[in-house]
Amino acid sequence: MLHLLASHASVRKYKDEPISDETLHDLIRAAQHAATSHFVQAYSIVDVTDQDKRDKLAELSRNPVQIIGAARALVFCADLKRLDYAAKKHGKTIEAGTTENFMVSVIDTALLAQNFVIAAESKGYGICYIGGVRNNPEPISELLGLPDHVIPLFGLTLGVPDEANEVKPRLPVEAILHTNEYDEVKYEQILSEYDDVIRAYYANRSTNNKSGGWTEGMADYLSKPRRAYMMDFVKSKGFLQK
Amino acid sequence: MLHLLASHASVRKYKDEPISDETLHDLIRAAQHAATSHFVQAYSIVDVTDQDKRDKLAELSRNPVQIIGAARALVFCADLKRLDYAAKKHGKTIEAGTTENFMVSVIDTALLAQNFVIAAESKGYGICYIGGVRNNPEPISELLGLPDHVIPLFGLTLGVPDEANEVKPRLPVEAILHTNEYDEVKYEQILSEYDDVIRAYYANRSTNNKSGGWTEGMADYLSKPRRAYMMDFVKSKGFLQK
Repeated sequence: MLHLLASHASVRKYKDEPISDETLHDLIRAAQHAATSHFVQAYSIVDVTDQDKRDKLAELSRNPVQIIGAARALVFCADLKRLDYAAKKHGKTIEAGTTENFMVSVIDTALLAQNFVIAAESKGYGICYIGGVRNNPEPISELLGLPDHVIPLFGLTLGVPDEANEVKPRLPVEAILHTNEYDEVKYEQILSEYDDVIRAYYANRSTNNKSGGWTEGMADYLSKPRRAYMMDFVKSKGFLQK
Repeated sequence: MLHLLASHASVRKYKDEPISDETLHDLIRAAQHAATSHFVQAYSIVDVTDQDKRDKLAELSRNPVQIIGAARALVFCADLKRLDYAAKKHGKTIEAGTTENFMVSVIDTALLAQNFVIAAESKGYGICYIGGVRNNPEPISELLGLPDHVIPLFGLTLGVPDEANEVKPRLPVEAILHTNEYDEVKYEQILSEYDDVIRAYYANRSTNNKSGGWTEGMADYLSKPRRAYMMDFVKSKGFLQK
């Protein structure tokens, strides 16, 4: 099982083989057993099967190839709408707009998604998370008819793999694990060594060779402003009001 | 594998058996292979081994029994600090305060955590997520020396189970899966049926019997304001600036 987890790599090229509704439902049912804060189950998945919608989603996410070529293209959404409905049924209203509820729904959705990924990979399927749905969250919300209190967090493509990507070396466990107190002093040495590991990985992998270590890549990537509209979008959907 | 996922239940009572650093590191290493947005790996885990800190964490989280009695008490944190460090190393600064980066770090951390949970459960360990660390995020951040751009999202206790809890029936897959368009019309019937399922579950389970269905429980729980300080806390740590 640890071997399955440790062999994860995103799959962006899939065989032209369908995945049945029955299989998809089995994977989702298993995934739903992820922990959920106070049993709120604050998530929805939109399965995009319509070809026009699929094409549009691919364009809006800027992920044409994999979204169009995957057996399934799913959009995972943080969802407080169903809970709104539940409260109204009993003459109550929920405080959907708190930062706490935003965090709960985002975390709930991510736990569900990762369980789904493990379920799928254990059956031999490949997946790729599509953060690109956050490139155009407003048009994608319209495309999928998402009401207030539902926002797309990421897409996920699913299919029978037609490629086997190499596994990227992660940060050493010492870099992310702290004992009793957060320790940033250790970063200098650990990240310098990790840069060497990543440089060697990028130089030697079979495709898409590039230069530079991890810290350099992160510095380049994160110093540019990205998705600056996100707070406005999230607020417009009724989250993060207070 | 689907069976392992579907048999998850939180474990709050553990045997007095330690878990070695080697085992903990193996579980974390496997977990780190979860997908991570643009390879940012925006998370840290604090392993609380010091008895005084453990007691304090238990008190602040309002989870005395399980945090004190677990083999390990971990705090999972969204972390942009390491990326700050990486950028500075190359004379750059990152835009840590965007809502996009907040979402990325929260999602990254949750994917890591759920992979960790599956790794642990596949080895026979039990876990419980502790959302209670968000009851006192500021004092807990001080306790663990968390710098700016690091916030505690949830705790996780880990140990050899000394109880086997029943698995709670989740929403039917039709309630969370939408095809092409979000469909809220279906909630009336589906949630009414699900209320019956949950009522029967609560009435018949072996411990902690209670009455009421799912929608009623959600209405009660979510209509009360909870953790209203969260936005101020998150902003005070340098997240959600814009």
